[in-house]
Amino acid sequence: MNLQKIIFVLLFHYSLFIPHTLQAEIITIGDELLIGMTVDTNSAWMATELTSIGFRVYQITSVSDNKEHIIKAIDQAMSRSELVLVTGGLGPTSDDITKQTIAGYFDSELVMNESVLNKITQMVGSRGIEMNENNRRQALVPEKCTVLENSRGTAPGMLFNRGGKILVSMPGVPNEMKYIMNAHVIPHIKTWFKRGAIVYRLVMTYGTFEARLAEILEDFEEELPVGISLAYLPTGGIIKLRLTARADTESAAMDMVNGQVLKLESIIPQYIYGYDGIMLEEAVGRMLADRGLTISTAESCTGGNIARMITSIPGSSRYYRGSVIAYDNSVKISELGVSDDLLASNGTVSEQVAKQMAEAIRHKLDTDFGVSTTGIAGPDGGTGDKPAGTVWIGVSSKSGTTARRFQFGGERDANIRRSSLAALNMLREQIVSL
Amino acid sequence: MNLQKIIFVLLFHYSLFIPHTLQAEIITIGDELLIGMTVDTNSAWMATELTSIGFRVYQITSVSDNKEHIIKAIDQAMSRSELVLVTGGLGPTSDDITKQTIAGYFDSELVMNESVLNKITQMVGSRGIEMNENNRRQALVPEKCTVLENSRGTAPGMLFNRGGKILVSMPGVPNEMKYIMNAHVIPHIKTWFKRGAIVYRLVMTYGTFEARLAEILEDFEEELPVGISLAYLPTGGIIKLRLTARADTESAAMDMVNGQVLKLESIIPQYIYGYDGIMLEEAVGRMLADRGLTISTAESCTGGNIARMITSIPGSSRYYRGSVIAYDNSVKISELGVSDDLLASNGTVSEQVAKQMAEAIRHKLDTDFGVSTTGIAGPDGGTGDKPAGTVWIGVSSKSGTTARRFQFGGERDANIRRSSLAALNMLREQIVSL
Repeated sequence: MNLQKIIFVLLFHYSLFIPHTLQAEIITIGDELLIGMTVDTNSAWMATELTSIGFRVYQITSVSDNKEHIIKAIDQAMSRSELVLVTGGLGPTSDDITKQTIAGYFDSELVMNESVLNKITQMVGSRGIEMNENNRRQALVPEKCTVLENSRGTAPGMLFNRGGKILVSMPGVPNEMKYIMNAHVIPHIKTWFKRGAIVYRLVMTYGTFEARLAEILEDFEEELPVGISLAYLPTGGIIKLRLTARADTESAAMDMVNGQVLKLESIIPQYIYGYDGIMLEEAVGRMLADRGLTISTAESCTGGNIARMITSIPGSSRYYRGSVIAYDNSVKISELGVSDDLLASNGTVSEQVAKQMAEAIRHKLDTDFGVSTTGIAGPDGGTGDKPAGTVWIGVSSKSGTTARRFQFGGERDANIRRSSLAALNMLREQIVSL
Repeated sequence: MNLQKIIFVLLFHYSLFIPHTLQAEIITIGDELLIGMTVDTNSAWMATELTSIGFRVYQITSVSDNKEHIIKAIDQAMSRSELVLVTGGLGPTSDDITKQTIAGYFDSELVMNESVLNKITQMVGSRGIEMNENNRRQALVPEKCTVLENSRGTAPGMLFNRGGKILVSMPGVPNEMKYIMNAHVIPHIKTWFKRGAIVYRLVMTYGTFEARLAEILEDFEEELPVGISLAYLPTGGIIKLRLTARADTESAAMDMVNGQVLKLESIIPQYIYGYDGIMLEEAVGRMLADRGLTISTAESCTGGNIARMITSIPGSSRYYRGSVIAYDNSVKISELGVSDDLLASNGTVSEQVAKQMAEAIRHKLDTDFGVSTTGIAGPDGGTGDKPAGTVWIGVSSKSGTTARRFQFGGERDANIRRSSLAALNMLREQIVSL
């Protein structure tokens, strides 16, 4: 191999693995951001998405509902970056001026869009109310934009393309923005800014802490081949491991990622419950549905949160029968057969009560599994040996009933969420061991 | 009264109600913000504080740990605004470059600060570890700044004053930033920029849509006196109305706001359920607790979400007994006495089933109120006359049992949330009418 060829190969590989990084910016619009009423969670979500498909986010700017300021922010961002994502200011009231402002910036008239108007008429009609002028105004869109339909709300997204640069305006309501991003914006910009392929997969874990996981995966991380990277994304008890690969084709990048996923499965099998964003309640639901098994719950300290998580999944009626929420001890006694004596001798928050609840609900609703919680959600109600955050969780099946004690912190919302995840994970372990 | 005096009085009033508003900006620094790893909660907290002491926050800007970009952002903010708050980039590692960058911007040398050094030595010592070069470097501060001690961490805050404008640099760790703000920055800027007050209140509404509310309040909005403004802040079914007033004293501003709150109460009494950020489940909980009333729930399509909302409030065990989640029809029959015949003749999603469920749970758990839901959460399961989003909600008390039909959209999460809010609001109306 002569020198010229070596250099060519090196350059080729260099351009393959470190392609020119495209730059993006995020602008969030709304008085509520600048008076501190609303925490801007949209920006972090969008930044994560943009980063995962290979963009570098240069700046995040929040501005008020003010025409001159919006134009200035957009103009600066468009001059610096290839892609500008804008959220907010698309509501029906007079303080929402983003649409007119952006239309003006792109020298574009507002025209009535019949398909958007039909959608709004339908949405408003299905709620049994009359269309008014404000609703109708939401169907006006700038002539020069690509309209991005919004199945979650009345304001559509708008995509502008000027000299190869793209600006997208979306509503500030998080679930509407996320829908438009996933359904339209990300596929569009992936095609528009075609470049070496970037692919990522998420490995979903539960059961340990970020620092511990990082320790276990130290060697794995060091041995990662060039062009592939690992990120830890912890969110309230679940840690997502994101593996990102860059290669010249999508299938090559996907092969790289999948090879590392296999390796992870051999290192931390006990923590992996699923892939690619699946929630624990959905993973457990699929396991139950696949096996034709049913479940019921008896909740005290979680107050219905486990039931809510399970039933948030479409089709959960195939495996979820129902629940008794025994918040008050009188309900534990009357509906779940917990005895006065047991409550007096062992306390409400105890192994025996958790077991009795799980067993009772399984029999009562005639299901394969019964899951129970009894604990102190806090902030008050704790004692010396059972501080706030003490929770017993029970799982009952025909092969027996087990219970485990967990100790969470003093924060009510976190305790309820963590207890629910722990219960779902205990159930998952039981199903796996069948 | 002569003309001169009239003009003087007019000018005086004008300056009283529209005092020159001081402008502030917030700059948050850190790569973790721009890749979406960290949600910027600091900005909303600082913005709330600044707004409450009368500043208008013009812009919030997030930039990476890059010297040129930091200087550019600071320079633009200083040219526009009287006060600039900067957080982040003060850690001990090499990617934290804020301190050197800002020192350079203010033409200031870094000098060793003995009192900061002593504090760091003490803190590091108390953790049983050795001081290293990184720790010592944190005691270097720009010569020209006022050092703001930080009892929560090793990096002090720094306050610069140039030509009457102020820039403050603080660590990005939220509890360190909040300590420095409360202990030093707010007292300092209150004294430095002595001026009028801005006060706001939130009026919490449920039961109609933003566009409709804007229509009802059109005259109210037009008649608002100078110095007071109204904003609509919709979040998933709840619309917050924010009234903001500016005056020369806090009590004058508060009087202005409260006058308009009274007016709103007379225009839209049916929609107002509370004030100042209270959630519907909390407002209803307080009403129950104040009256010594108890409640139970029988949920089908909401799958435990109403129970979860009620029990998310600390102290809810005073009024909430429990629930039967009758997701499967077999549970409606066995636990709530709904008859096979009724389900067959009227359908699961019907007025009679909702009423039967509400009545049964009230008797079963011996509470003052019973609340029920039965509906089609979607996306599947709808039929011609009962599409996804059709929900019957029942409320039972000793004075009788009522049920209402609601028609929401096709989106599962939104249907569950809207049904839960509608149920809580029906309960609220019943309590009010007692």
